[in-house]
Amino acid sequence: MSYSVIFDTDPGVDDAQAIALLMADPDIEIVGLTTTFGNVPIDVATRNALLLTELAGREDIPVARGAAAPMVKQPHPVPAHIHGEDGLGNQVLAEPQRAPIDSDAARFIVDSTRERPGEITLVCVGPLGNLAAALQLDPELPERVARVVVMGGSIHEGGNVTPVAEANIFSDPHAAARVLGASWPLTMVGLDVTHETVLAPDRMERICSAQGRLGEVLAASYAFYRQFYEQARGIEGCCPHDSCALAWLKHPELFQSVHGRLNVITDGLAEGQTLLARSDRQYIDRRWQNDSRAEVCLGVDGEAVVTWMEQLLTRS
Amino acid sequence: MSYSVIFDTDPGVDDAQAIALLMADPDIEIVGLTTTFGNVPIDVATRNALLLTELAGREDIPVARGAAAPMVKQPHPVPAHIHGEDGLGNQVLAEPQRAPIDSDAARFIVDSTRERPGEITLVCVGPLGNLAAALQLDPELPERVARVVVMGGSIHEGGNVTPVAEANIFSDPHAAARVLGASWPLTMVGLDVTHETVLAPDRMERICSAQGRLGEVLAASYAFYRQFYEQARGIEGCCPHDSCALAWLKHPELFQSVHGRLNVITDGLAEGQTLLARSDRQYIDRRWQNDSRAEVCLGVDGEAVVTWMEQLLTRS
Repeated sequence: MSYSVIFDTDPGVDDAQAIALLMADPDIEIVGLTTTFGNVPIDVATRNALLLTELAGREDIPVARGAAAPMVKQPHPVPAHIHGEDGLGNQVLAEPQRAPIDSDAARFIVDSTRERPGEITLVCVGPLGNLAAALQLDPELPERVARVVVMGGSIHEGGNVTPVAEANIFSDPHAAARVLGASWPLTMVGLDVTHETVLAPDRMERICSAQGRLGEVLAASYAFYRQFYEQARGIEGCCPHDSCALAWLKHPELFQSVHGRLNVITDGLAEGQTLLARSDRQYIDRRWQNDSRAEVCLGVDGEAVVTWMEQLLTRS
Repeated sequence: MSYSVIFDTDPGVDDAQAIALLMADPDIEIVGLTTTFGNVPIDVATRNALLLTELAGREDIPVARGAAAPMVKQPHPVPAHIHGEDGLGNQVLAEPQRAPIDSDAARFIVDSTRERPGEITLVCVGPLGNLAAALQLDPELPERVARVVVMGGSIHEGGNVTPVAEANIFSDPHAAARVLGASWPLTMVGLDVTHETVLAPDRMERICSAQGRLGEVLAASYAFYRQFYEQARGIEGCCPHDSCALAWLKHPELFQSVHGRLNVITDGLAEGQTLLARSDRQYIDRRWQNDSRAEVCLGVDGEAVVTWMEQLLTRS
């Protein structure tokens, strides 16, 4: 299957890996990259989107700058100990020559889907402010989108920012509530599967060799990112969270998923938690009516995902 | 090991099984039963505690009546489709001859632990209003209790009342927040383990034969309770939730547990959720400081638990 994708991103080490996959996949047309704060501030995210495309000689890919802050809550500090101050593991890199387009992210999403209704898949791997803003600009947006794939949230696995909240949802829970509750076909690819997927160092070595200058940048950022995973989770390698969203798009057969209704907790101790009312379960409290709108990944063949990543990034 | 136990209960079909276990175990001294609303209204819960002890000829066990309603929230309807209007699967049974003691549940807990500091284990298998009230009467109570074992909550498994809330915690989240946050040694035995434990019909047949009149009442209530489990979870048999708390007390080696800090969500969509900040995990949000106070069961050898139940209830 081929897909036309707008990739909403806050690069970020694992975002960079996913952007490389997008550019390497002959079955994917990149309609554009839209940027958001998240792993890094918006200026850094936008710079990295420009830089990564430029390193691959893909100046044809539009980059639209987006949300600089959460909708409602106060911003929290960026996780520089995970992604580096520069989002790429603190590398010394020349600034990109190219610039973002004039349109901002939300407007780019609205315009693109108006030009090509039903054709575009939105793959979102950062906080969801751009999609929330696009829904506010145009409430009929869901009717024109092929599907929304969200890397974010957690159902059974628990969180990484708090015991229950995953970072993308925690960073802007109000935006997430708006997006996960909208009436579009949506797939959530959260920590339940990304924590089961580990990109090992030997795979990254081979990716580095095959991807030229872009590969060197991926490998250096990976080397920094690994330290966090070793310390926080005791694993050798890293979880390629954002690439898992693309893996689901291209190879849904590698995932186990259920359907149901998603809600997001916006306040209190559980702030940023995603809550799934499964359509195949009954709850004593009758307010939880069944609704099978969202598809939520709960299991994955993680080795198959990283094998797919390596194959795509080392093909000649 | 032998234990002196105050059993705080809202019988309830699975409560009745646990009360039978308590009475059958030569290593357990039952200091008293304290009752609460929950599976049934407080009048029914108290009647059942009196009746079940009377059927076993154990009029020596004090029964203290307790909380009739939640601390803060409005009561929700009792789950008569699960436990029956009478809490025992809608049986026609003679009323008990015996009466509760004059002391209410909270006062009984305070007085008993003052008489025997450090000796008494509180095993709580209903909403936690009685323990919250006891803490309000006497803030130094935690220093005099050997341990609190709570059947309630869920960490990874999800809820039964809502997608995230287990019934006992959902029924009085404010009381649960008070109790799970107090400074006593506490073990949580929640849906993560009770949903892995299934008491099959053939085991109940043998229990019925061995337990005389009490056995007949257990078997008839089980027959009603089973219908809910078949419909809601597609299993043959039922989850003996409350007995799992006793199984942990007697056989902790059958359980896998972790330590950490427990919080309870009292409001909003996640109302009644238990939230565990594991002491062996790091969270990006720095508010989640490590605290290893609570022990939380996350895994169990469910077959071994029901084997233990059957052996204890069929020994001659």
